[in-house]
Amino acid sequence: MAKRSQASEDWSRSLAFPGIVASCRIRLARNLRGECFPDHASPQDRERLRDLVCQKLQEVKPLKDCTMIPIESASQQALQELREAHLISTELTERGSGGALLLNPDRSLSLMINEEDHLRIQVLRKDANLRAAWRVADKMDVAIEEQVDVAFHPSYGYLTACPSNVGTGLRVSVMLHLLGLRLTDEIDAVFKALDRLGIVVRGIWGEGSEAAGHLYQLSNQQTLGETEEEIIDRLSDVAEETARQEQNARMRLIEDKPELMMDCLARALAILRNARILHSDETLDFLCALRMGADAGLVLGIEPEIFDYWSTAILPGHMQTLAKGVLEPEARDRIRAELMRRAMESVRLAD
Amino acid sequence: MAKRSQASEDWSRSLAFPGIVASCRIRLARNLRGECFPDHASPQDRERLRDLVCQKLQEVKPLKDCTMIPIESASQQALQELREAHLISTELTERGSGGALLLNPDRSLSLMINEEDHLRIQVLRKDANLRAAWRVADKMDVAIEEQVDVAFHPSYGYLTACPSNVGTGLRVSVMLHLLGLRLTDEIDAVFKALDRLGIVVRGIWGEGSEAAGHLYQLSNQQTLGETEEEIIDRLSDVAEETARQEQNARMRLIEDKPELMMDCLARALAILRNARILHSDETLDFLCALRMGADAGLVLGIEPEIFDYWSTAILPGHMQTLAKGVLEPEARDRIRAELMRRAMESVRLAD
Repeated sequence: MAKRSQASEDWSRSLAFPGIVASCRIRLARNLRGECFPDHASPQDRERLRDLVCQKLQEVKPLKDCTMIPIESASQQALQELREAHLISTELTERGSGGALLLNPDRSLSLMINEEDHLRIQVLRKDANLRAAWRVADKMDVAIEEQVDVAFHPSYGYLTACPSNVGTGLRVSVMLHLLGLRLTDEIDAVFKALDRLGIVVRGIWGEGSEAAGHLYQLSNQQTLGETEEEIIDRLSDVAEETARQEQNARMRLIEDKPELMMDCLARALAILRNARILHSDETLDFLCALRMGADAGLVLGIEPEIFDYWSTAILPGHMQTLAKGVLEPEARDRIRAELMRRAMESVRLAD
Repeated sequence: MAKRSQASEDWSRSLAFPGIVASCRIRLARNLRGECFPDHASPQDRERLRDLVCQKLQEVKPLKDCTMIPIESASQQALQELREAHLISTELTERGSGGALLLNPDRSLSLMINEEDHLRIQVLRKDANLRAAWRVADKMDVAIEEQVDVAFHPSYGYLTACPSNVGTGLRVSVMLHLLGLRLTDEIDAVFKALDRLGIVVRGIWGEGSEAAGHLYQLSNQQTLGETEEEIIDRLSDVAEETARQEQNARMRLIEDKPELMMDCLARALAILRNARILHSDETLDFLCALRMGADAGLVLGIEPEIFDYWSTAILPGHMQTLAKGVLEPEARDRIRAELMRRAMESVRLAD
């Protein structure tokens, strides 16, 4: 394992366009020895396991401040909001009984119970510091394994419901905004190269989803045959390389094709300012484009981070959480357009 | 054949949204007896036929004012401009030798020589008055047949290169702007109904083309077993019915879903005003949408017909004809955006 300094852990700080990195995530899959996997367990067994886990984990320090959200009694809007925040999977929200989410106050740490596996430890960060995320996840894992007996095989490693997770049970991902590579038409070549490196690329909403906002999640394919640190360093390196390619694409655009860049920004701003109906995916597209412009000094009159705030605030679940009730899709699209018109009022393009 | 008054001939005048009808067209396919069809003739034979036809038709009165454009010596931009004006087919522009277009000064009357058939008489109007167009085409046909010996079979009628034109050799079409039916999601049902009536629906650029600008060409399938007047009246009736469905769709939109209508107009205007790069198809989409809004009194500060002017002026061939030279696609897209920004300066939405 290559040693790396604390300073180089978060390479996103050295990017000319900080908005390229949206977030990073560590996920560890763990299962209790001698228990059926959740998909094969009875509702009673799942509920018993949840109660057992919650009781045992009371002693785990990082989980002490967590709120426990039982899936079956949570509202649809609450679940949607958690899904949009990448804190919960669609699979878990559809778990009829026995599913739960433990979530710490700043939402950086969570534990899904009775998803595909009994336990899924998740650590989320808004930067690219996977090593820091790993330290938190690992600490939590150690603490959990002191309390419950986890299924581990001397040669296969951690046993999981899906064979693709066997071994370390570790999934590492970085979410990148790759609009520059899309505009320079290089994105397919980059994806092909990532595929050859064994990196999985998905849209922002996970498997099979479209890449709304040109946000792409890069994650490791293999969980077996490498140490956790090797997996993390490799994914981190590949994500950094991809982010630098994106950075280059943006610089070349600004240098060589300023009209293309300005056209993209001008259209995004014009639509956010004038549309009467806005769907969430297109709004995300435009907000991410303007964030890119703000990072480049081409979009003025607003802090770049405000675009990130809106990128989640305009999602259906988040809007309903804020409105404290159900908003029908048509009403949401109208309200979203009004919100955007007001939010973009002071924004202008450099020129 | 049903009799109809002069007044009812052009039903487009009674529409609440005159922009629904873009144009109508009559086309007659004729071939000279004893000559190979152009696709099977030698270059020499095609050239001989063209010379013969041009010489003989000097005596045909409607053709006296026409300009003769030989295809092989015309510039690519000139041909593209003629294609965009629906005066010439792609097939004829690709005819290596012997092809020609005879075109009268106001471009309402034209004759393609050595397209798929030896002669194709075309009459174009900016309204829906197919009967008036037919009178012109018929008069020209009679005059032509006095000069040249046309292939006619006592039971099959006029013989043509493609069996689908045998009989009358008549193709009748009306171009309609159907954005309202698209916005109310009724367009597929309308197309299915048209298909059952034997009406062919194509995009603005003919066979296999996308419907840029939501402009659709309705034409007759059958050319055999009906008289010319029957074909014309049937197509006219169906086009009128379709145009009235479009009118109803627009009225319902304004009444029941004003946000959807205003959203469509606001986006069109915002993009035309702010884009730095504009492709012709999307520009056509936006201009046609704004024409719809102008007809409805929702787009102000501009005469509705100005949108029609721009709908052709922004096409690649037209732009190059105006610029008197070749403009590369990238330059065109930039110039088009500049033109639109200035042309839309005074335009505003009602509210």
